[in-house]
Amino acid sequence: MTPEEFRRHGYAMIDLIADYRQNIEQRGVQPTTVPGEIKAALPVSPPESAEPFEQIMGDVEKLIMPGLLHWQHPSFFGFFPSNVELSSVLGDCLSTGLGVVGLSWQSSPALTEIEEVTTDWLRDMIGLSREWSGVIQDSASISTLVALISARERSSQYALMHDGLQDRGAPLIVYTSAHAHSSVNKAAILAGFGQNNIRTVATDERNAMSPQALAQAIEQDLAAGNRPCVVIATTGTTAAMAIDPLDAIGELTQRHGLWLHVDSAMAGAAMILPECRALWRGIENADSMVLNPHKWLGAAFDCSVYYVRDPEHLIRIMTTNPSYLQSNADGQVRNYRDWRISLGSRFRALKLWFLIREQGVSGLQARLRRDLANARWLAEQIEGSAHWKLVAAPALQTLCIRHEPPGLNGEALDKHTRAWAEELNQSGRAYVTPAILDDRWMVRVSIGALGTERQHVEGLWALLQSLVTEMPAK
Amino acid sequence: MTPEEFRRHGYAMIDLIADYRQNIEQRGVQPTTVPGEIKAALPVSPPESAEPFEQIMGDVEKLIMPGLLHWQHPSFFGFFPSNVELSSVLGDCLSTGLGVVGLSWQSSPALTEIEEVTTDWLRDMIGLSREWSGVIQDSASISTLVALISARERSSQYALMHDGLQDRGAPLIVYTSAHAHSSVNKAAILAGFGQNNIRTVATDERNAMSPQALAQAIEQDLAAGNRPCVVIATTGTTAAMAIDPLDAIGELTQRHGLWLHVDSAMAGAAMILPECRALWRGIENADSMVLNPHKWLGAAFDCSVYYVRDPEHLIRIMTTNPSYLQSNADGQVRNYRDWRISLGSRFRALKLWFLIREQGVSGLQARLRRDLANARWLAEQIEGSAHWKLVAAPALQTLCIRHEPPGLNGEALDKHTRAWAEELNQSGRAYVTPAILDDRWMVRVSIGALGTERQHVEGLWALLQSLVTEMPAK
Repeated sequence: MTPEEFRRHGYAMIDLIADYRQNIEQRGVQPTTVPGEIKAALPVSPPESAEPFEQIMGDVEKLIMPGLLHWQHPSFFGFFPSNVELSSVLGDCLSTGLGVVGLSWQSSPALTEIEEVTTDWLRDMIGLSREWSGVIQDSASISTLVALISARERSSQYALMHDGLQDRGAPLIVYTSAHAHSSVNKAAILAGFGQNNIRTVATDERNAMSPQALAQAIEQDLAAGNRPCVVIATTGTTAAMAIDPLDAIGELTQRHGLWLHVDSAMAGAAMILPECRALWRGIENADSMVLNPHKWLGAAFDCSVYYVRDPEHLIRIMTTNPSYLQSNADGQVRNYRDWRISLGSRFRALKLWFLIREQGVSGLQARLRRDLANARWLAEQIEGSAHWKLVAAPALQTLCIRHEPPGLNGEALDKHTRAWAEELNQSGRAYVTPAILDDRWMVRVSIGALGTERQHVEGLWALLQSLVTEMPAK
Repeated sequence: MTPEEFRRHGYAMIDLIADYRQNIEQRGVQPTTVPGEIKAALPVSPPESAEPFEQIMGDVEKLIMPGLLHWQHPSFFGFFPSNVELSSVLGDCLSTGLGVVGLSWQSSPALTEIEEVTTDWLRDMIGLSREWSGVIQDSASISTLVALISARERSSQYALMHDGLQDRGAPLIVYTSAHAHSSVNKAAILAGFGQNNIRTVATDERNAMSPQALAQAIEQDLAAGNRPCVVIATTGTTAAMAIDPLDAIGELTQRHGLWLHVDSAMAGAAMILPECRALWRGIENADSMVLNPHKWLGAAFDCSVYYVRDPEHLIRIMTTNPSYLQSNADGQVRNYRDWRISLGSRFRALKLWFLIREQGVSGLQARLRRDLANARWLAEQIEGSAHWKLVAAPALQTLCIRHEPPGLNGEALDKHTRAWAEELNQSGRAYVTPAILDDRWMVRVSIGALGTERQHVEGLWALLQSLVTEMPAK
């Protein structure tokens, strides 16, 4: 494609995206696609000859659009807000168009320095001290894996240079709670700890990790001759947005010399609001922390920022220095390849840099406050309504709700919950995520898509009420 | 940013990218930026208020552009061609604009099914049998890590469910060559094997892994009571584009029940040319393989395709199934979260799907053949010229060259090599990568940027000759 053709097709692409965002409410949130439908509509073999660009764009309209769950829809209350501010789209588009690659500072100086500046800005925005340094990782799953490997190595006096985890010492132990994200267990397994060496620490009535239970688990492991290694705490768990008490946990990890990694992938964004920072009191005692600006904050996916207090430790584990990557600037600059698993990276910081500048800190704060107010409003409706219940104390913008008609409980209640949630999603008028909490199904309502205004939350509430009214009594 | 503002600024962004590509030859390939220069030009703190978009774009021109190494420049012969076809830019831009997230099939059916179709297409294009299945990973480093963890688990009867690598059995051993990519050693360390359990198998005069030496290393480990686990072979090594003999290596891995992972991150693209496939004869004996379409092939970074023969094995290691990700479609569909480390993903397949369709297989083949012919031409000039030398047998499009004036050797020769390479890069007229091969510095010339025509290679050759002529005799 020549630059002139790109200009023409590029304008069309910009129009397609602008139209998509502008008219998104005309679409049902959830597609009606059945498994295999899109695959079946495409040729089994790749095209031998070039196809006209218009034909590809035609397939976008015909095949792709009807096969999407519309995460940017104002009535999307599913999973988590994965907002992509249009300014961030342009920052990311610039990154793709420039096509530069980060391997070392020298392989594109601006790529590295903008990442430094932008992650520093974000650090200040969330109120962390300047003792932290940031790097953009692929995803929170990778950040958590990096944290676990860092902890593993610090606890084993850098066994990576010797026998690794195969060193015959007492087993290293990982502590987390049952409410931690699925990626925590996965990362512990991938990092080689083994399922038997992951301790699921008990949680309290607010679904938060119990420091007493953690203390006990650590003592038990010490008594058994095991090596406590790392605690993964969460600020804002996935199912119920529970907040683990970092101050009490941090006291324990410091006392025992354990690594403390904090998963704030979703809720970390809230810390740009000073009034929310009490939720992670004690964060300064952590060794590492992850926050995904590609969630609620509005950066294009994927943009997961990993903060560490001691980058030298990270570098010691991740460093590579083949001859073809050496340059005169080494020693004076940050080489981010030594801060992450992947050697190469695209110019990821642009989408975050564009977002912060185009919105300003105050603009981002105003949007998040809007979402918190909307969540409070819905929580009030639910609390004031017979048979509706908040099944977890609401923190931030995620509500865990259930409709509990008289006489319905146990599996019958589960069936009812899943039925109305399914009907709601099938309607296309809104989208929510059913999940299990305390062994019972409930429905998560995650408020905070870019376009979600009060009227959309009101619409959801009306829809919820009408659904259960119209449903046949169980 | 409203959709209408996006339309306006989006056109400007398209123009910026089109102009950048159109006029890229007016720029020096390498920037003159000094360490810290860009950082110093930016405010230490984030902007409190929104900034006008024009101001951000102004900084792009003023700060970003002069701070880039121009990978898309026709005289870029450094590292590897990281081509970003303009059609792929548009596919990626669409992905960002739609802002959908892959967590499960249900979380955007088209995202999953287009990834299936596109990776199947690519598999057919490179001549793999239909027994392979593909998934797009973040980078080859991650793909290699996934392969090593897969091997670790298969060899240990899925110790992940028990004590992991901490199971006190005989150590698992990794085999690779000194020419393997730096990510192999890094991944083996991150996966917990330990440096002491990585065997660096000897290479032959073509820098390829010696199957005899590999057989011997395996026998030695077996005799010592260790557990040989995995071989990482490379089709196209980083420094010298050496080709490990997969048929002989595959025979050994099959005989001993070892996992064979093939790193074809760069050279795998050449397999779209039937005439190149003899280079990886034996590939069907591998268990996993990685190919980066974001290199020579032309897809936007990052797009690393990982192929496995037995996805069930991959799923067994990577699966997570929290309640909030369960859906009615489970069991009928592919859930790619069980194929990779990261739970979420952007709509990565679009950039590859756009590329293949807009270029057609024949278009991509023609471009790669052009690059191979250009490399052959330059190799002939060098071979026919006094004092210039190819220091590795050329395979594909990477040449390893040295200028060896009479009487110059040892460190004096190294000094000469690094001096002319530095001068060439400083000139801005072309860009190459110095690297060490057989303990001596040489210069890698990697041919195949999108815009590189014969005239650019001729220009490079003239420049090389003039540089060494003008340099003071050492």
